[in-house]
Amino acid sequence: MQSLLERIVAIVGEGNVLTGDDVAQRRVDWMSGASCRAGAIVRPADTDELARVMRLCHAVAQPVVTHGGLTGLVHGGEASPDELAISLERMTAIEAIDPIGGSMTVQAGIALQTVQEAAAEHDLQFALDLGARGSCTIGGNIATNAGGVRVIRYGMMRQQVLGLEAVLADGSVVSSMNRMLKNNAGYDLKQLFIGSEGTLGIVTRAVLRLQPRMTSERTALVACPDFDGVTGLLRHLGRTLGGSLGTFEVMWRNHYALLTEESGRNTPPLPARWPFYAIVESLGSDDAANVAQFSAALESALEAGLIEDAVLAQSDAQRQGIWDIREDIEGLIDNLSPLFTFDVSLPIPDMADYADALERRIGERWPEGRMVIFGHLGDGNLHVSVGVGSGDPQTRRDVEQIVYGPLAELGGSISAEHGIGLEKRDYLPLSRTPGEIALMRTLKQALDPKGLLNRHKILAAEE
Amino acid sequence: MQSLLERIVAIVGEGNVLTGDDVAQRRVDWMSGASCRAGAIVRPADTDELARVMRLCHAVAQPVVTHGGLTGLVHGGEASPDELAISLERMTAIEAIDPIGGSMTVQAGIALQTVQEAAAEHDLQFALDLGARGSCTIGGNIATNAGGVRVIRYGMMRQQVLGLEAVLADGSVVSSMNRMLKNNAGYDLKQLFIGSEGTLGIVTRAVLRLQPRMTSERTALVACPDFDGVTGLLRHLGRTLGGSLGTFEVMWRNHYALLTEESGRNTPPLPARWPFYAIVESLGSDDAANVAQFSAALESALEAGLIEDAVLAQSDAQRQGIWDIREDIEGLIDNLSPLFTFDVSLPIPDMADYADALERRIGERWPEGRMVIFGHLGDGNLHVSVGVGSGDPQTRRDVEQIVYGPLAELGGSISAEHGIGLEKRDYLPLSRTPGEIALMRTLKQALDPKGLLNRHKILAAEE
Repeated sequence: MQSLLERIVAIVGEGNVLTGDDVAQRRVDWMSGASCRAGAIVRPADTDELARVMRLCHAVAQPVVTHGGLTGLVHGGEASPDELAISLERMTAIEAIDPIGGSMTVQAGIALQTVQEAAAEHDLQFALDLGARGSCTIGGNIATNAGGVRVIRYGMMRQQVLGLEAVLADGSVVSSMNRMLKNNAGYDLKQLFIGSEGTLGIVTRAVLRLQPRMTSERTALVACPDFDGVTGLLRHLGRTLGGSLGTFEVMWRNHYALLTEESGRNTPPLPARWPFYAIVESLGSDDAANVAQFSAALESALEAGLIEDAVLAQSDAQRQGIWDIREDIEGLIDNLSPLFTFDVSLPIPDMADYADALERRIGERWPEGRMVIFGHLGDGNLHVSVGVGSGDPQTRRDVEQIVYGPLAELGGSISAEHGIGLEKRDYLPLSRTPGEIALMRTLKQALDPKGLLNRHKILAAEE
Repeated sequence: MQSLLERIVAIVGEGNVLTGDDVAQRRVDWMSGASCRAGAIVRPADTDELARVMRLCHAVAQPVVTHGGLTGLVHGGEASPDELAISLERMTAIEAIDPIGGSMTVQAGIALQTVQEAAAEHDLQFALDLGARGSCTIGGNIATNAGGVRVIRYGMMRQQVLGLEAVLADGSVVSSMNRMLKNNAGYDLKQLFIGSEGTLGIVTRAVLRLQPRMTSERTALVACPDFDGVTGLLRHLGRTLGGSLGTFEVMWRNHYALLTEESGRNTPPLPARWPFYAIVESLGSDDAANVAQFSAALESALEAGLIEDAVLAQSDAQRQGIWDIREDIEGLIDNLSPLFTFDVSLPIPDMADYADALERRIGERWPEGRMVIFGHLGDGNLHVSVGVGSGDPQTRRDVEQIVYGPLAELGGSISAEHGIGLEKRDYLPLSRTPGEIALMRTLKQALDPKGLLNRHKILAAEE
């Protein structure tokens, strides 16, 4: 690797090839705090430098791992000593903003929050939002097809990308920097790189879609009498709020109760006595009209028996108080540690039975075990948190079997928004058919025949 | 081919392999009325039959052309006597509807309108809509990534597909029938088949996304003083209507005047004296609230000088009268015949200059020539209609040069929603980079190495 690194230094400059302690002190997993073990970290300044680096790597079959903000949850950033990490941390430019067409052109290393703020300066919004906004990068958001709390209204990252540029394994550059909403001139190549976790190419630049900014965001917490109430409410709000429904997050009682009355960590805006709680938001431009429409929708839901009670936040503090319950990951860690978290999706009508069976099976196996659930229910996405008293790998695998096992029959997914990475790789056949996995391998082979990009992520090496 | 056909008859049955007159009487191009020239038309009953047919074809390298509703505009359905046409006309079943999760599972040969109507029966909507709804099929909509008049609100066909199943060139079946909004378990393979015009696989089934049905559709025709008014109005309505803005269709004065005052074909709701006219729609669930919000938005646009005048349709008849102008393709054919039509996209800020230059260049070359423009402006999509007195192929190529030529520099596209097919294939390099075209070839080679599926469509054979 040494002579390769010397040639890479000649491209990116001495200060941009990190080795030794500069590598080890970098954390590649914010949950475990694990250190980077890559042979070196290379920080190109632009697409051209990266392309030249990749041509060198390709010539000598040097594998690489791409690093964005390192906020992933499936060990996608892990690298071994025989791999180089490619960090896009120097590629953070905003190249152009078109407020009329509604687009922003950026380098892939830029942080999500920086993009959100730049859009807001033009009275527009970038619609993707998630907790890691300050650290995660647009390139990482693209590579993982990030989700978050606004998917029900604006879709996932895939829907926010108009065009992109990627460097392939052999160092060739595919520039597909489309700026229009509509472009049917041949294959839509950007789709290959969105959500493929860096295994087919390294995203270097992107054209992002900007949306009109909604100035009125209204938040309510509601309690539902049963799961039919939850799904009935989802349909009711979809119909009555139309394009204004911005969030539909559901907490099972076990989740809500744990983080409010049981632990005392958060003040419950509603007592923890009903089986389901939903955070719903209505987005509009005229606040008075938005409040009127939202209040009427909640009132008719109450009359129809879809909800038992509701609190419409009257201040930013109240709004934050509601979200604090939903976002209190520390509360989960404190109470369920060692904590196993899961990100699954399944057809909404099957969710209640799935959750009940999960709780039962965990209780049977670990009488002291505990499971709580919240999720982006409107998107079919549940986050399952489990604590069974032990954090060892075999226990984790046992819990995984219970959580992932039923998904195959339900047509669910072992990953709604976090991706596969290394963590879920062995379970991929639960969610994808043999034909799908064969086609994934065909694509990987076609684009990266030497297997240099994010080795062993998503797909295991063929036996 | 004869012995192959006998073996295919054994799979699909005698009545489902059409030859001779039964082939010739079928029209593959609704605009020209051209006859089908395929060696035979094969009509499988289901995925399994099609897979078996394709395994036979693959074994003897028999090329095929897939037929949906045959409403395309780029000669995608053309077949030569040495090709078989595969028609999905018998595969029209609705297999399942999930009103809670919001999805419908169908076979690919079903007509768009049938899907729309089935969704409406569950008080839901299928959001794709376009003029050919009665004839075009879901499989064709997927293969061409169809657009239409609701893209600004709901996106193109790509956004309406949750999962699909496809038969590959070798007869293997890729079943990727995901039903959730979120599924990041590995590569999102459906994207390969959406918009690739049947060149990578034959779509046989799909899971479609259903949306809440909007019961209030309000339509206005407005006149803008200049192009800044048009783009200002687009931003203004995006902000003030938020998720309710359902349509933003613009007619240049030349288009509006021709089809109203000049030809007398349609009654002009507003005099034809301003440079731009827009049809805008606001979609809501509460009609009174929708009208109030829409009226207020138009009023403030008037005050801000973005529009000169506006008519808010007060009845279905008035609404239809407005749409009749926009949809009067016969009027274009009558007045510009022989008519050349084009479907392009480009960054919105560049549109006015592009249109002006086009009109000037056509006028210089053909003093009697005429060009009119309308389009889904909010999507960056213009439809250009040109009549220069001659319909011969060389004249068409001359006009194409003028229409497509400037798009390369502007980063525009030679096809916004119609696809490439055979018609635009030679111009693909104007809209796509060499790196992109090389990657398209890589994909085609990986999925269809014998080149059997929709031969020569999108990509020419390599020289």
